[in-house]
Amino acid sequence: MSMAADLNGDVGESFGAWTLGDDAHVLDHVTSANVACGFHAGDPQVMLATVRAARDRDVAVGAHPAYPDLVGFGRRAMTCTPDEVYAFCLYQIGALAALCRAEGVPLCHVKAHGALYNQSARDPDLARALARATRDAAPALILLGLPRSQHEAAARETGIPFAAEAFADRAYQADGSLVARAHEGSVLHDPEAITPRVIRMVTEGTVETVQREVVTILASSICVHGDNPAARRILEAVRHALDEAGVHINPLREVLSL
Amino acid sequence: MSMAADLNGDVGESFGAWTLGDDAHVLDHVTSANVACGFHAGDPQVMLATVRAARDRDVAVGAHPAYPDLVGFGRRAMTCTPDEVYAFCLYQIGALAALCRAEGVPLCHVKAHGALYNQSARDPDLARALARATRDAAPALILLGLPRSQHEAAARETGIPFAAEAFADRAYQADGSLVARAHEGSVLHDPEAITPRVIRMVTEGTVETVQREVVTILASSICVHGDNPAARRILEAVRHALDEAGVHINPLREVLSL
Amino acid sequence: MSMAADLNGDVGESFGAWTLGDDAHVLDHVTSANVACGFHAGDPQVMLATVRAARDRDVAVGAHPAYPDLVGFGRRAMTCTPDEVYAFCLYQIGALAALCRAEGVPLCHVKAHGALYNQSARDPDLARALARATRDAAPALILLGLPRSQHEAAARETGIPFAAEAFADRAYQADGSLVARAHEGSVLHDPEAITPRVIRMVTEGTVETVQREVVTILASSICVHGDNPAARRILEAVRHALDEAGVHINPLREVLSL
Amino acid sequence: MSMAADLNGDVGESFGAWTLGDDAHVLDHVTSANVACGFHAGDPQVMLATVRAARDRDVAVGAHPAYPDLVGFGRRAMTCTPDEVYAFCLYQIGALAALCRAEGVPLCHVKAHGALYNQSARDPDLARALARATRDAAPALILLGLPRSQHEAAARETGIPFAAEAFADRAYQADGSLVARAHEGSVLHDPEAITPRVIRMVTEGTVETVQREVVTILASSICVHGDNPAARRILEAVRHALDEAGVHINPLREVLSL
Repeated sequence: MSMAADLNGDVGESFGAWTLGDDAHVLDHVTSANVACGFHAGDPQVMLATVRAARDRDVAVGAHPAYPDLVGFGRRAMTCTPDEVYAFCLYQIGALAALCRAEGVPLCHVKAHGALYNQSARDPDLARALARATRDAAPALILLGLPRSQHEAAARETGIPFAAEAFADRAYQADGSLVARAHEGSVLHDPEAITPRVIRMVTEGTVETVQREVVTILASSICVHGDNPAARRILEAVRHALDEAGVHINPLREVLSL
Repeated sequence: MSMAADLNGDVGESFGAWTLGDDAHVLDHVTSANVACGFHAGDPQVMLATVRAARDRDVAVGAHPAYPDLVGFGRRAMTCTPDEVYAFCLYQIGALAALCRAEGVPLCHVKAHGALYNQSARDPDLARALARATRDAAPALILLGLPRSQHEAAARETGIPFAAEAFADRAYQADGSLVARAHEGSVLHDPEAITPRVIRMVTEGTVETVQREVVTILASSICVHGDNPAARRILEAVRHALDEAGVHINPLREVLSL
Repeated sequence: MSMAADLNGDVGESFGAWTLGDDAHVLDHVTSANVACGFHAGDPQVMLATVRAARDRDVAVGAHPAYPDLVGFGRRAMTCTPDEVYAFCLYQIGALAALCRAEGVPLCHVKAHGALYNQSARDPDLARALARATRDAAPALILLGLPRSQHEAAARETGIPFAAEAFADRAYQADGSLVARAHEGSVLHDPEAITPRVIRMVTEGTVETVQREVVTILASSICVHGDNPAARRILEAVRHALDEAGVHINPLREVLSL
Repeated sequence: MSMAADLNGDVGESFGAWTLGDDAHVLDHVTSANVACGFHAGDPQVMLATVRAARDRDVAVGAHPAYPDLVGFGRRAMTCTPDEVYAFCLYQIGALAALCRAEGVPLCHVKAHGALYNQSARDPDLARALARATRDAAPALILLGLPRSQHEAAARETGIPFAAEAFADRAYQADGSLVARAHEGSVLHDPEAITPRVIRMVTEGTVETVQREVVTILASSICVHGDNPAARRILEAVRHALDEAGVHINPLREVLSL
């Protein structure tokens, strides 16, 4: 039996004079790049440079739409209507799609950012708005989101492919949800602890929760971060461990056999 | 011999809680709608509503990209590099293209807004950036711009169709350029004076300048405004006069035989 | 016995090319003007023109700070920390204070806008952030807010004067809170029904709730709106009825005897 | 004879999730800090943290207003009217003044940022708008700007104190203006070359131009940068060289004997 997984990471989160993250390093290790689309980060020039950098490394490009919240980096929960979320997402996905078209790069997936990700994972109406925007903005886009969440339900209902992701560095609850960042132990920092978890997620489809139970987590993609030195070490360690374990690190479309 | 002309007008310039213009009235009279794309006006929901309103009236939809200048409504000259203009325009055209795709509406043309229109009409590098973004953002877009300007030169060079427009309510110089708004007499207000000028533009391809010379102005489209009661009366009068003169009011694509 | 009340209304909610409301009409009728400060509406030029218009009519000027949400007009609930709210409010109040100083106009009060008003009325930490910003931004500012809410508690705790307001056109619950806008009957539209309510609020300090109970509502100021023709008629009717009832319509500072 | 000079540097240019520059290092070396005010950089929380950091090191605080251009970092020339510049500057200076008031820190000076600095140095109407906003926003503010420029003329005309600055790392023309950044040799990078220039500026009031002439440059303040490692080394070298030369590094107000 051969195993495969995608690795996804956020990139293109610089803006104007401000630089954030080490995109070159992330792009050297992931197979899918979530590109900020201007609402929480990423001005048009940053987006274009990011698409080019992804193309040069054969990394699949996805849109990373967010709430309109530059000063809050899209991390603030806010009450937008489903109609607003639908229009916001269409707009952002479309903007990135044009930049991809200009560079001859296919747009592959959509993954919501920050508070929009969290709120749409729980709220069926917001999830449906996100899924429909994904269906309507460009052909054949995959929705990348939280397994067993409203993301998955909405993708099924909307008739678009869904890819579930697991988080390399986050602690899980028994129901498969993440431990909130505010809680101690919610974020893992030690590559020695993280890599065996990721191997288990990919090879067994399970994760050990904070209550030390083992629960199922079926994920096609592992989300990794690269926005600080520790995160970069984790990213390298995860990639290396998966290679060692004989896991094929492939883009989402191949993992899903689309 | 049968004559044809397109009528174009700006729409979708509301934003959030703010309403601007009478889009329903403009859309009832024009054949091409220039839809604001979020940088000077037009949030994603306004854009979506505008695309739907245009579709319901069989009005062709075009993108109306601008400098990033919400508080100045895109009317401020600013020094952006050609690379910035290229990326800004790709982004805005792409965003609208996705909204059009969602509504099953073809995106037909691009016309720059405000200061971006004026600066790119004179500056070959900015015009080239605009033309290339038009070529790269979506297939088969027409660049709508000022005749005998850098718009036209850049469209030719870039290999995309160009449509020249004449302004119903603006005074012209001998070289075919517009009299600057700051000058007295630069904007015409009397429908009685405007309609024969428009008929002459369309049927003879000429206009009388402020110096009372008659010069050639070959335009496929007449630009009209609808953002105040007087403008609405002019719009109605122009449409009526063209109908009376036997001019076929057709969308840009048909006028250009594309 | 002589009765007195302040009338307050929102103004300065235009932005750039967009006009909202009929400020001249509102300023002709109120004694306190809540001036938008740039985060939900009101660019610096609009703010300056609004301060001048208020001064010309001897209307007291207050700051109307909001969440940073131009496209949502500050009406979206969002999760900002108390530290963010404190800094946002200081910034906005200070900006208006400088415009007032330039025009020789005292800055008198602060009233939060939209979602910031509603969230801080319920959340003691947000209310404290608002009250402290009011205390720290400029001398002797009055916090105008919801009676028996966290606004009042925070003002007391912070040691700044508090002015309670009642809403001319809103239905009340038994606990003195407003019926949410989403519910039918939450907003009153008939001047014939509204004016006796306002007279009763001012002269008896009571209001009839949606459950037909009479509850105490002690308000120093009545909030009125003027952003549509019906609202303007209500505003005129309320002002006229209060005059007829012998109520002195005075600025907040006089009503509070500060 | 004892010599004195102020050292000024830009700080507070982070925004939301984005960090820019090493403010702690700059504040350890300068006597006057130009604090970004939200239009090109610096959200309210960043501004507040910057005011606190300056206060903790006894560094004088000034406002650094800019054009409304976040994505362009205020570096884009744009055509704003004098009325717009006046209102933009009042707004920004007032916002910072309130943050200073909250922290018990006096606001000392105003220095325009980026394109607003350059355009107002040449244009008397923009300079007058800047000087009037400086006069009207808060009491006793010093305008810090380019010597022999419209900054100086407008400050004199407006009746406010003016402080001239010289740039440690920039090449000069014979007329006292800076060599444009686009030209080779416009920016100096070698501390060995820079420090004797600065000593000469302060002790002799002269600078050698790119044409190798020696011209007068009377400056009360030396502008230094700290936004990259090389700039930080220059900043340290300049500070050290001035100390060695017996120059008193004092805040602007003392250098001007105000």
